Amino acid sequence: MLEKQSEPLPKIALIGAGVIGTGWAARFLSTGFDVYLFDNAPNDNRKMVDKATQSARQSMQKIISLPLPKMGQLHICKNLKEAVQNSDYIQENIPERLNIKHQLYEEIENITSRHTIIASSTSGFTPSQLRENAKNPERIIVAHPFVPVYLIPLVELVGGAENPFILSAKKILNKTGMHALILKKEIDAHIADRLLESVWREALWLIKDDIATTSDIDQAICFGFGLRWAQMGCFETYRLGGGKAGMAHFLEQFAPTLTWPWTHLTDVPKLDHHLIEKIKTQSDQQSGHMSIESLETMRDQNVTGFLQTLKANRWGAGLAILEWEKTLRDQTFNITQNMDLMKPLPLYQTTVSPEWIDYNGHMTEYQYGHVFSDATDAFLKWIGMDQHYLQQKGSFYTVENHVFLLKEIMANTELSVETMLIGYDEKRLHLYHTLKALPQQQPCATFETMLIHVDVESRKTHPMHQDIINNLNHLWQYHKTLPKPENLNPGFKKINAGKFK
Amino acid sequence: MLEKQSEPLPKIALIGAGVIGTGWAARFLSTGFDVYLFDNAPNDNRKMVDKATQSARQSMQKIISLPLPKMGQLHICKNLKEAVQNSDYIQENIPERLNIKHQLYEEIENITSRHTIIASSTSGFTPSQLRENAKNPERIIVAHPFVPVYLIPLVELVGGAENPFILSAKKILNKTGMHALILKKEIDAHIADRLLESVWREALWLIKDDIATTSDIDQAICFGFGLRWAQMGCFETYRLGGGKAGMAHFLEQFAPTLTWPWTHLTDVPKLDHHLIEKIKTQSDQQSGHMSIESLETMRDQNVTGFLQTLKANRWGAGLAILEWEKTLRDQTFNITQNMDLMKPLPLYQTTVSPEWIDYNGHMTEYQYGHVFSDATDAFLKWIGMDQHYLQQKGSFYTVENHVFLLKEIMANTELSVETMLIGYDEKRLHLYHTLKALPQQQPCATFETMLIHVDVESRKTHPMHQDIINNLNHLWQYHKTLPKPENLNPGFKKINAGKFK
Repeated sequence: MLEKQSEPLPKIALIGAGVIGTGWAARFLSTGFDVYLFDNAPNDNRKMVDKATQSARQSMQKIISLPLPKMGQLHICKNLKEAVQNSDYIQENIPERLNIKHQLYEEIENITSRHTIIASSTSGFTPSQLRENAKNPERIIVAHPFVPVYLIPLVELVGGAENPFILSAKKILNKTGMHALILKKEIDAHIADRLLESVWREALWLIKDDIATTSDIDQAICFGFGLRWAQMGCFETYRLGGGKAGMAHFLEQFAPTLTWPWTHLTDVPKLDHHLIEKIKTQSDQQSGHMSIESLETMRDQNVTGFLQTLKANRWGAGLAILEWEKTLRDQTFNITQNMDLMKPLPLYQTTVSPEWIDYNGHMTEYQYGHVFSDATDAFLKWIGMDQHYLQQKGSFYTVENHVFLLKEIMANTELSVETMLIGYDEKRLHLYHTLKALPQQQPCATFETMLIHVDVESRKTHPMHQDIINNLNHLWQYHKTLPKPENLNPGFKKINAGKFK
Repeated sequence: MLEKQSEPLPKIALIGAGVIGTGWAARFLSTGFDVYLFDNAPNDNRKMVDKATQSARQSMQKIISLPLPKMGQLHICKNLKEAVQNSDYIQENIPERLNIKHQLYEEIENITSRHTIIASSTSGFTPSQLRENAKNPERIIVAHPFVPVYLIPLVELVGGAENPFILSAKKILNKTGMHALILKKEIDAHIADRLLESVWREALWLIKDDIATTSDIDQAICFGFGLRWAQMGCFETYRLGGGKAGMAHFLEQFAPTLTWPWTHLTDVPKLDHHLIEKIKTQSDQQSGHMSIESLETMRDQNVTGFLQTLKANRWGAGLAILEWEKTLRDQTFNITQNMDLMKPLPLYQTTVSPEWIDYNGHMTEYQYGHVFSDATDAFLKWIGMDQHYLQQKGSFYTVENHVFLLKEIMANTELSVETMLIGYDEKRLHLYHTLKALPQQQPCATFETMLIHVDVESRKTHPMHQDIINNLNHLWQYHKTLPKPENLNPGFKKINAGKFK
């Protein structure tokens, strides 16, 4: 039914597979890009990338309401040439030493066309430094991401606000769900790391002077202002601090007080062996009971939940997710093109998030409803209820559901919902979903649902638009021949649709 | 059935009703404390406090799974004496001028017993400064909160880690859901504000030098590291940056690079008229299209969502919420003591969060399920399924639900669920919920649910414990006489309980 074809995605080369390079690989692969990876160290790069990609997909599936695009293909390359030749975008993630970066860029310039973007993940160097001796300096830019690269939307693009290579990079990175902040001028450490390092400097003094431990400082952040900064930066936050009079009031009232502590401790503390040891010991006391891996999992779960909240509120980083969903829409709808209509339709897949687990240790009952509700939405999209339809024509309201819970479902289970058309008329739609746990395809629950079609203006029942009826007619040719589910509720036929007034 | 009586809460006095004082009032009142407020300015303090308290209750209702305790009473006092006499805890929120604070403390010391805690919200002064000339210096402490005071858990307590007044203050503030960070030593600006001011200083330079606008800086925070800091501070975050080798590896590897930009720009920028004007203009461009009020609402919605996530993940600020819930449990269960058993039981109330609204502009279908599921939990708690029972004895699993959606429900609607016992045997429980929208009590949906009782170990059906059966027997004497709902589903009797294996 949906025949739209999307453009092929640019070919991505990644040089260097540390924490940053692996994170980039996970983001690109998860969003459908093919990745050509080269690293000259003898690690098992495929294994590391697979692990990061799994984390990325799990998180993205919770944030994006559409089925994710088909994963990109990972090619582990034996040499630089194999990775970068014919690539459209190269992301460099090698150690922070200027001479080896220069050497790498020279090799790349000899292999690639001058249109290929060379983006560095560096936090330490400016584009001017990276471009020394380059043949085509403009195409060397900074694209500075934040760990975990596959989840934090921010990427700082440095190298000229009007530079066409920056604008092309922005387009590509937007397709991976990133939010590009284009710097007007280059500066050491770009913007975010300058702010981070100012905190770091202050924190080191507090530890050195035995005012606070690493745990005290982290509590001050994540029980306090960190909760604010996940959704408004320091200026917007202080704007609220000023009350109705806003920013000017705040600055005028508090400026003298604020200036005063600034005159202390602006020196740079020396990060010597003694201080390193102290921080290491305190950090071990604070977090040593958890492995790095379990801390990473917890971090990803938390950040995923924040992004879900921001998306629901259409705010901050949630706006980047919504933009991303728009660009994904075309891609993901392709997966339904060659669907077998002689079966219930597997239109919705998801993974059981650990947040969905209740005190019984299994998926809580209303999350079954959530999954089925998303599956209904996937079906409605599939029969043609897109944003345009919703704004101009009509929508469906649910009037009755009947659910059988058959099996417990545990955290991180992969789920698939298969949807069967039971009946419809011009105003009503009767669906039957079966929820299966992968990989064994065990049925875990069934869900029978009756929807009515309403007009967007009057909010009263109203016939569906002909396009949707045509799509239902087409599907019905197939689904009317399928055997009816055993536990259909006879009461459903008596539903008095149109109770909404 | 539940007869536990809780201790009376300490009496709270608040001096000063600006943004901070109003926030304190909202937190104390919402968590059941009576508040005696005095401010010498002629504002409508009751109106301001009512508004903040409404925001506080809305957010808390979304974070806490129990019904909130009965609101405390607000007394607007005509003079200092009326506010502080017989109080247990005084929170001072007057302007940051040391001489008027000293004067206030002297007056308070003349009126109150020497056991009353005097806590200051100051960010600018240390306890040593506040205590100059005091008769009982130890009882003057700093309790420094963060805006919005009714939602951000952090409070910094300064004035001696062993000081009994600090320990008493911690106990009281924990009952309001706060997380107390007790400072080992006093220092100008405490801990969190030192970190905040270091960022502020760096941000001012970036604006002064035209590297970035206020919007650029805020994006760098809330699309980037702000998302991390809502759940892990800088040390735990960098611990992950070091990979499996952890903190020591990170410090050793990155220390030299990090040191380098610190040598720049540690001077203090002058916040002169020109810079204030520049920030004001940029901030207006960034956020001027929204009122302060709507920004505050958005902030509260976002932070509430973050706290929900952290609570579900049992992490960071979520741990403070879980602790708080424990202390609330006794208080809230009192509300059910004098319930009329001759009616369906109104055991669960909530407010429709704006996040629950879907593309149709009304509460999305699965949130009906969520509300009903919480109502079932409230009923199970009421008949005696507490944490002890869950850990030692058994639990209930849902096997079938049948829902009728009767009316649309819009954002911020207050909801009440009334629960009727339809039937039960030693292994089964059959309930019928009616969801009503306040204040008109319109039925919006009905929900019939069948649960089976399972053993915690085997996860198989198992008879309920006698205590629960006794409670059900007691309720049944009343509910068996009620007329049965019209839309009960005859299919429910045929349920084959025990499908879980």
